[in-house]
Amino acid sequence: MQIWVICVGDEILRGHTLNTNLAFIGDTLAREGYSITRECTIPDEENIIAATLTESLNSADLVITTGGLGPTTDDITRTVAAGVLERPLQFDPDILAGINAFLRSRNVSVPADALRRQAMVPTGTDTLTNANGTAPGLWCQLDKRALLMLPGPPRELEPMFRTHALPRIRQAWPAHLATRTCEVCGLAESVVAERVEPVLEAFPEVRPAYCARPGQLTLTLTAHTSQREELERAFAEVHPPLGTHVLPADCKTVGAAVGKLLMARSWNLATAESCTGGAIAKAITDVPGASAFFCGSFVTYANAWKEACLGVRPKTLAAHGAVSRETAEEMLDGLLARDGVDAGIVVTGIAGPTGGTPDKPVGLVFVGTGFRTVRRVERCVFPGNRESVRLRTVAVALNQLRQSLLAVGDEA
Amino acid sequence: MQIWVICVGDEILRGHTLNTNLAFIGDTLAREGYSITRECTIPDEENIIAATLTESLNSADLVITTGGLGPTTDDITRTVAAGVLERPLQFDPDILAGINAFLRSRNVSVPADALRRQAMVPTGTDTLTNANGTAPGLWCQLDKRALLMLPGPPRELEPMFRTHALPRIRQAWPAHLATRTCEVCGLAESVVAERVEPVLEAFPEVRPAYCARPGQLTLTLTAHTSQREELERAFAEVHPPLGTHVLPADCKTVGAAVGKLLMARSWNLATAESCTGGAIAKAITDVPGASAFFCGSFVTYANAWKEACLGVRPKTLAAHGAVSRETAEEMLDGLLARDGVDAGIVVTGIAGPTGGTPDKPVGLVFVGTGFRTVRRVERCVFPGNRESVRLRTVAVALNQLRQSLLAVGDEA
Repeated sequence: MQIWVICVGDEILRGHTLNTNLAFIGDTLAREGYSITRECTIPDEENIIAATLTESLNSADLVITTGGLGPTTDDITRTVAAGVLERPLQFDPDILAGINAFLRSRNVSVPADALRRQAMVPTGTDTLTNANGTAPGLWCQLDKRALLMLPGPPRELEPMFRTHALPRIRQAWPAHLATRTCEVCGLAESVVAERVEPVLEAFPEVRPAYCARPGQLTLTLTAHTSQREELERAFAEVHPPLGTHVLPADCKTVGAAVGKLLMARSWNLATAESCTGGAIAKAITDVPGASAFFCGSFVTYANAWKEACLGVRPKTLAAHGAVSRETAEEMLDGLLARDGVDAGIVVTGIAGPTGGTPDKPVGLVFVGTGFRTVRRVERCVFPGNRESVRLRTVAVALNQLRQSLLAVGDEA
Repeated sequence: MQIWVICVGDEILRGHTLNTNLAFIGDTLAREGYSITRECTIPDEENIIAATLTESLNSADLVITTGGLGPTTDDITRTVAAGVLERPLQFDPDILAGINAFLRSRNVSVPADALRRQAMVPTGTDTLTNANGTAPGLWCQLDKRALLMLPGPPRELEPMFRTHALPRIRQAWPAHLATRTCEVCGLAESVVAERVEPVLEAFPEVRPAYCARPGQLTLTLTAHTSQREELERAFAEVHPPLGTHVLPADCKTVGAAVGKLLMARSWNLATAESCTGGAIAKAITDVPGASAFFCGSFVTYANAWKEACLGVRPKTLAAHGAVSRETAEEMLDGLLARDGVDAGIVVTGIAGPTGGTPDKPVGLVFVGTGFRTVRRVERCVFPGNRESVRLRTVAVALNQLRQSLLAVGDEA
């Protein structure tokens, strides 16, 4: 089955907007066993949209468009599609009533002609309800093929795709690929491949894919739906060589996995951050419900704050510098001494681009984690620019605490 | 001039990787007055790459590919291009020497056949140095057209594009569009448009574009290079109606603009964050050099930390709740009372998705800013999901302090 995606929008081509809609649709389809054959991003220009639609409808089973369904005059996908399909636009009073109800609920007013434009749909097209906006999605069945038109804003597109489009796709084209994924942290991509690929030699029908981010990697195994049992066995067998580097199935991020371990012990976590400037606390609180285990963070950017908040001794800072094992150890002791803190993470380092020396290069970070009598401070040197150093520090720090918690098991 | 971009990579189509290369190339070209006509993302499959390359080379003046130049067997862009161009691959010993020198400097070893593969280039192709990796870029001149092949990793692609590709593009196709951009914060897109478009009626050759993010918007004015004077006048005239909402030209973010104002006064900033969980401190320290004015942040997620770190009274928390004007005021007083803190930002709110009530809905945030005797606490209700509420809170909080600093001018 061929799925072609057309994203309409100058803002993507100009680099103002990252194409998160493609990532969302690609990821959602992949989980269902479908894959996108081609994606095109084109400007809001009538002749280019028409040419791309025509080419795509001649080649693909399912064509998905995003964007250009809104109320303004540059939203022309609907009109161009009607022309290409030779299905004239018709006014649908039910759509207009739905849009009016949505706008009343939000106390928003929109010019009448803009509303009416959104209520025009190509003849013989099904509309998909938009729970978070005015423009409905459109599903146009063409014999065995289909054209699916989705609005551009992600908060409108995403629920519409999941709720209304996916069931139609599943019904029209039963999936032929099955996939299983897991999250792996703390191992380089080449190391994961070295451990996974020998296992997969026994499963020639199962293909691996690796998608690496700083400190974390998504491992995806894919097979034809007729090979589902082999896929499940292969998925089970790649786990032992990866050990505790695999996150629990219900945790997408290492922050969520740390939270799960802490909540199981009813422990509270606090952090003290220098070079990450709050990014570890942010990563922890990105997950809803973090207040169940997270008390807070001291972002001690200035040395005076390291002394005042964490009790780091001026002597230590003078003798060893803020970026040193000794300072990290005192930060950790000070943090764990605070009331109600059961487990702690501290980092101090040089994120760059300036501030490095031959002894202490940019990318040098001391990562400390601890709880009860357990203390661990590691010296790390991360490659890359400021953002990369900070992202890796966050991932490594959270994983270091996670590994320590797993190592003590239920003893602590 | 037609510029077509081809991004090769299953990981983009499967939604594992956001296409930041497209955003980078689009933004860099737009600043130089070029625009991308079409972008295609395709899987690492020989026949699809060949068909897309052939189609693109028949239509575009410049075809840019990203990805598929690496050392592994699924990196096939180079080989497929050689076939399409009918220019056989040749071994280039200089490339191999360069790759070996790069690997020695990093203490990395790579199998010899993988190295050799990267040193094969289509006949008559110029190589572009890769300062951050092994695969060189390739520039293939075809009469008046050109094929530019770039490696996929952004840290390799970005410097190579800026340093080696852009000068060639400028020389081959002098830009026909000129652009001017400014960053606007604290105004909705529709309000910016209402203020800008009447001004532009006097400049029919100048086109505006708006790119909105939470709390901030990039305004771009574009005109033909022959209209550069009109563009400059239009750009000057849109500034007064936008007032202090426009950031200084050397500040890309409101965090950088706040830093500039504080450094001019030699003032130190601290923050105290609840619902943002460190995201304000992270935004401030995203900018290198923040240590010149930023002392740190108290991420007081738990109420006990609001009491211990900021002196919020238990009575206030009990009577009004953690998310209240009264708590925000006491957080701000406590923060500004700390040694060495000249200016402060505090936030307390409900980021969701749970925890809302009819009186205190999800999205309710109290934002407090102050310095010296100036205190300001605003009640805000932000729409959207947890991430959106947190992003908007960061933007609004930083801008609130910025506006207060601008309002007192040099008096404070």
